[in-house]
Amino acid sequence: MIDVFFTPTPNGHKVSIMLEEVGLPHTLIKMDMLAGDHLTPEYRQVNPNGRLPAIVDHDPIGGGAPLAIMESGAILLYLADKTGKLLPEDPRARSLAQQWLMWQMASYGPMQGQAHHFIRYAPEGQEYPVERYRKETVRLLNVLERRLSEADYLAGEYSIADIAAWPWTRAIRAIDLDLADFPATESWFEKIAIRPAVQSGTGVKNASNLSSARPVLTEEQWSNLFGDNLHESARAAAEKAHSERKPA
Amino acid sequence: MIDVFFTPTPNGHKVSIMLEEVGLPHTLIKMDMLAGDHLTPEYRQVNPNGRLPAIVDHDPIGGGAPLAIMESGAILLYLADKTGKLLPEDPRARSLAQQWLMWQMASYGPMQGQAHHFIRYAPEGQEYPVERYRKETVRLLNVLERRLSEADYLAGEYSIADIAAWPWTRAIRAIDLDLADFPATESWFEKIAIRPAVQSGTGVKNASNLSSARPVLTEEQWSNLFGDNLHESARAAAEKAHSERKPA
Repeated sequence: MIDVFFTPTPNGHKVSIMLEEVGLPHTLIKMDMLAGDHLTPEYRQVNPNGRLPAIVDHDPIGGGAPLAIMESGAILLYLADKTGKLLPEDPRARSLAQQWLMWQMASYGPMQGQAHHFIRYAPEGQEYPVERYRKETVRLLNVLERRLSEADYLAGEYSIADIAAWPWTRAIRAIDLDLADFPATESWFEKIAIRPAVQSGTGVKNASNLSSARPVLTEEQWSNLFGDNLHESARAAAEKAHSERKPA
Repeated sequence: MIDVFFTPTPNGHKVSIMLEEVGLPHTLIKMDMLAGDHLTPEYRQVNPNGRLPAIVDHDPIGGGAPLAIMESGAILLYLADKTGKLLPEDPRARSLAQQWLMWQMASYGPMQGQAHHFIRYAPEGQEYPVERYRKETVRLLNVLERRLSEADYLAGEYSIADIAAWPWTRAIRAIDLDLADFPATESWFEKIAIRPAVQSGTGVKNASNLSSARPVLTEEQWSNLFGDNLHESARAAAEKAHSERKPA
């Protein structure tokens, strides 16, 4: 059994889709980030970075104690290793899947994520960052569009690279971009959207968080997501680790 | 022989250090980003994302034509696969290396990179983004500090995860952070800094780009790095790919 510490975000959906695709039994543990569920010392034992998603595999590769894994990209690599699925064996296609997975993890996700932040959560009126991150997302969509004009899937065949990029493509509507402007990407998107594993891995009602409206947050909720509560929990965890460190 | 399309940035140094560590012969091809070397259609054949670094392996895993690889994290995975070095075989340590590599690729690099942007390149006076990204870098340093208080290296043993995180730790001085505030990280940093491969992979004179001074750029240079030239080259490449696409 695999426990998934989950919120219905693009990164969370990568993992829920992957688990449906490879058919591994799993339990979704819903985490309330507004309430600060991700900031507890207990959760930091699962994910030292205090972010979502993470998994705990109670029957890990190689056996032994349950294995906790953070970072959606590392979870995809691990589950592909565990099942022998969705990471091509051919060295060339394998590298392509790794390359586009890294591209999503390093740019398409984080830079679009900054656009979401400045459009929906940051103090209003900051034109430069809003424009910077929306334009960078458009640049990345053009990179995706070029690739999907020459190949059916990012690595040639359907792989973890597509599973990583798909939920972030679904999210562009929340920063007022239109997939119709990227026709090869739109075809790829629609083809993946009708896969049963993608439908069960996302769920219709989870789409509700993709509104481009600015959410109304209390100070405490904002602090849990972006402010002092977030930063202080990481500082306190480092300090505690220091105090428990054996002298060199 | 491996060609490395290179600039002396943290991401470039990951690859130059790795190649020295595993002892593979390579040629550094120095790219001038201010001049827009990364925006040409020729370079986009190597790296569809138009970023640096990238490699071309003329003797790739599995044989055949030369293989181009983008994304520093994917290059590290590939070179570890190719040589059987610096990615542990033990499944648990292997996953840890993948997790911390992804953590660097998805957060520690991109978020610190945004701090560099707002401190050194963006129009001045933008307090919110400067504070947001510097604080997020401190949070990530606390995460690193906690891990390195409990383990000598990120995956237990020295691996591609350390090679990915080390050059970005070296870069924090350029956003006015001090490694002395993170003592376990500082010990780890110094231990890695004296490795011969790290010294030859970075080179003393390449440290010169780590100043926190704001560089003076022409409009053309800024456009190549962050502006219309960057965005237009991606748009033009997508348009060209469309025009060459076979009808479905």
